[in-house]
Amino acid sequence: MGKKEVIVTVGLKEGISDPEGKNVKKALSLLGFKEVEEVKILKSYKITINENKCKDIDEKVKAMAEGLLTNPVVHDYEISW
Amino acid sequence: MGKKEVIVTVGLKEGISDPEGKNVKKALSLLGFKEVEEVKILKSYKITINENKCKDIDEKVKAMAEGLLTNPVVHDYEISW
Repeated sequence: MGKKEVIVTVGLKEGISDPEGKNVKKALSLLGFKEVEEVKILKSYKITINENKCKDIDEKVKAMAEGLLTNPVVHDYEISW
Repeated sequence: MGKKEVIVTVGLKEGISDPEGKNVKKALSLLGFKEVEEVKILKSYKITINENKCKDIDEKVKAMAEGLLTNPVVHDYEISW
């Protein structure tokens, strides 16, 4: 038992407008990268957890994601270990 | 040949202060998640590229990352396919 790292990746749901991604695409196009068709922005939280203080890590991380890190109306999230 | 998706993940270099991550850790702690030891924020760009318009995708994506998506003074980045 010790420390464990988990990454929670949050992105916008399909169909929700992503203006930042659109702006990055535009900027890349202005820089000459015409082959870029779409850019989507994702945000990840790399969380270090002390396993000694925690019983059910999977459930905890899910609760963190749903309680603070995402807005279920607009966000999808993925948990990776 | 067709479309290809590449993810460029950008994070702060080791030793660079991450106030947003610290605030998320604090907020999680206030919500009762005392087992969280550290939170680091990463940002990813999911880029869809039209392969027909592009010869050397690896080099192009590296150029995008270094030309627009990151600041080499403070950021590290990773490219994943």
